[in-house]
Amino acid sequence: MNSHWLKPSAWTLTCALMMTAVPMRSAHAQDNGATDIQKVVPQGKLPGQLAPYFIRSGEGERWLVGGLVATLIARGEDTGEMFETAILTGGRDANVPPHTHARSHEALLVLDGEVEVWLGNGHYLMHRGDYASIPPGTPHALKMRSHRTQVLSWTTGKEVGPLYKALGQAYAGYVQPEKVDPAIAADLKKKAEATADVRFDARPLAKGTPQRVQNATIPDKNVPYVLAAGEGQRMLAGDQLFTFLGDQKNSDGRFIAVMTEGPPGPMIPAHYHEKHTENFFCLDGIMTMRANGETLTVHPGDYVHVPARTIHAYQLNSPYTRFVGFLTPGLFESFFRTLGDKYDGYVYPQKPGPFRFDRVLAKINELDLKLVESPAPKK
Amino acid sequence: MNSHWLKPSAWTLTCALMMTAVPMRSAHAQDNGATDIQKVVPQGKLPGQLAPYFIRSGEGERWLVGGLVATLIARGEDTGEMFETAILTGGRDANVPPHTHARSHEALLVLDGEVEVWLGNGHYLMHRGDYASIPPGTPHALKMRSHRTQVLSWTTGKEVGPLYKALGQAYAGYVQPEKVDPAIAADLKKKAEATADVRFDARPLAKGTPQRVQNATIPDKNVPYVLAAGEGQRMLAGDQLFTFLGDQKNSDGRFIAVMTEGPPGPMIPAHYHEKHTENFFCLDGIMTMRANGETLTVHPGDYVHVPARTIHAYQLNSPYTRFVGFLTPGLFESFFRTLGDKYDGYVYPQKPGPFRFDRVLAKINELDLKLVESPAPKK
Repeated sequence: MNSHWLKPSAWTLTCALMMTAVPMRSAHAQDNGATDIQKVVPQGKLPGQLAPYFIRSGEGERWLVGGLVATLIARGEDTGEMFETAILTGGRDANVPPHTHARSHEALLVLDGEVEVWLGNGHYLMHRGDYASIPPGTPHALKMRSHRTQVLSWTTGKEVGPLYKALGQAYAGYVQPEKVDPAIAADLKKKAEATADVRFDARPLAKGTPQRVQNATIPDKNVPYVLAAGEGQRMLAGDQLFTFLGDQKNSDGRFIAVMTEGPPGPMIPAHYHEKHTENFFCLDGIMTMRANGETLTVHPGDYVHVPARTIHAYQLNSPYTRFVGFLTPGLFESFFRTLGDKYDGYVYPQKPGPFRFDRVLAKINELDLKLVESPAPKK
Repeated sequence: MNSHWLKPSAWTLTCALMMTAVPMRSAHAQDNGATDIQKVVPQGKLPGQLAPYFIRSGEGERWLVGGLVATLIARGEDTGEMFETAILTGGRDANVPPHTHARSHEALLVLDGEVEVWLGNGHYLMHRGDYASIPPGTPHALKMRSHRTQVLSWTTGKEVGPLYKALGQAYAGYVQPEKVDPAIAADLKKKAEATADVRFDARPLAKGTPQRVQNATIPDKNVPYVLAAGEGQRMLAGDQLFTFLGDQKNSDGRFIAVMTEGPPGPMIPAHYHEKHTENFFCLDGIMTMRANGETLTVHPGDYVHVPARTIHAYQLNSPYTRFVGFLTPGLFESFFRTLGDKYDGYVYPQKPGPFRFDRVLAKINELDLKLVESPAPKK
């Protein structure tokens, strides 16, 4: 392992500054204000209240909606009404018919397979790693094109999750039934409109050949967009590559979406945030998460919710580990821009880049970051 | 868990027949002829001789070839010269230039990203789960189109693996350098032609728009073909879905390629084979493998090699677990066709299908299958 969260020159500075900025303490300390959040809820169960939790791939609250399984891994009640996350799993022709959310911002990340997406006036063909940002008021729809399709849908607030309950039925399975009618009845759509932030659209969808997603940059304002896998604003810190799929400008400050990848390295220093909520959805490899004293081993498809005031840390353990996070609100963008340097490559580098934690420390009082552990690497 | 390797009616029959067909014994028994193979080699290291082994995602013998990292996870010396397996990882424009193997049959399975493949007269765009069968003598080439592309290349014999050594240089990294020239020099191609079963082709590749892979069936003879993700001949046994990506007719009996998926279930009964070699490459979820007394937890990207005369068993642990195996030679096809029933769906069913182990037992002497453990489920 030649990757370190801090290079020696930076450690010294960090440790010196931490002594004055934030007293050193353990993750179990009772005096740091971050212990009002309960311990991590056992894996596989949504907590039903604001709490840090860990949920294994496939688990969650499941609804069969037309031809797809909507697995809610974060509901309004689990996140302090800040956001919801659903994994949509289905076969060819499973779809979410055209609709608009008036108040909720949605982001889609394709996890597997091929999916046709209508977004405003755009019509796209999306694959694993492709991303879409859907501001409130944007008509959109999706139709799965492969036999194994999985899409992560992230939405602000608490008003989109109830959509699946209204449109579907509680479901014990994890994959769609082998034969299924993908159509959703009109009365269920009305029921959904009465209980969720959704308005279905009777206009027919554009036909023709969808455009392959090729966009390589994100806009500097809150408009609908798609982004090709691997693209976005890339920042390097040491050997970890952070890619902004969405920043504050794209969501009026509501959230940022950040992909992180890297090689095996040490655990980053334990810390917590006062004002923003984080979550970690693992896409590749193995990572270790610490959250309020629990140590969790996280594999692809596993999810960890880390609300504000949860002491946490992570470590990448596999030669190629990648996870995505949606940070709500988006104010932690300044941390990544302070720590990271712009990077042209598309994979983490063989030789780690500069690690400018000194820059973070210089403005730590402006960042929503409380360190609770020495950043010195474990021997 | 409502899935069982055997339904109760079948167990009784099995147990009765096993008493006569194969004496019951433990996986550690010294008298069953399957213990001449050493214990499983520790993870992360290729054994350098025929042996069962387990290797974690990313590990293996790595060569930097043009713009891609070729990670050999099975070389001729590790498999008794039966097959080789490489994982090709690269960014956009990394490529394997046009070439032909005179004696080796190759199969490609896309693991991530988008890759353009030329195959005989075909020109295709392939994504995760798409498969290509490339008989000896078929000109082919591939070019990566996404920033994160991974392709599994499986080849018969021992004459293709040396290609990467000849074309590239030993490489400590796991991902390609951030900036890399994808071209491969002419002198390296000559070196490769002198040491590996490869002949490079100077003819220019077809230009134009590649065709999206849509083929849904495999041919009944040994010709080049591509197959769309999820397609192939699907057979159901209980709640496990077996999909033939390739059968004996497609390879003159040299191998079969089988995708297996299912929900969590019990460990299948330990068994071994006298005549064929198996391997397990995990794509989704978590599985447990037993091999010669070792118990291994296997995650996406991990690989287990199980030569003939290795006592082994597997268990699916995750709500959706999927692995692919290349079985060499292909004679075990008859087992799947005996046990399984043709299946129209594309995912494992909510209600398990029939489990006809009675049919397997009725012709067990014709199958390359030695049971060494009672199939009764653990309580």
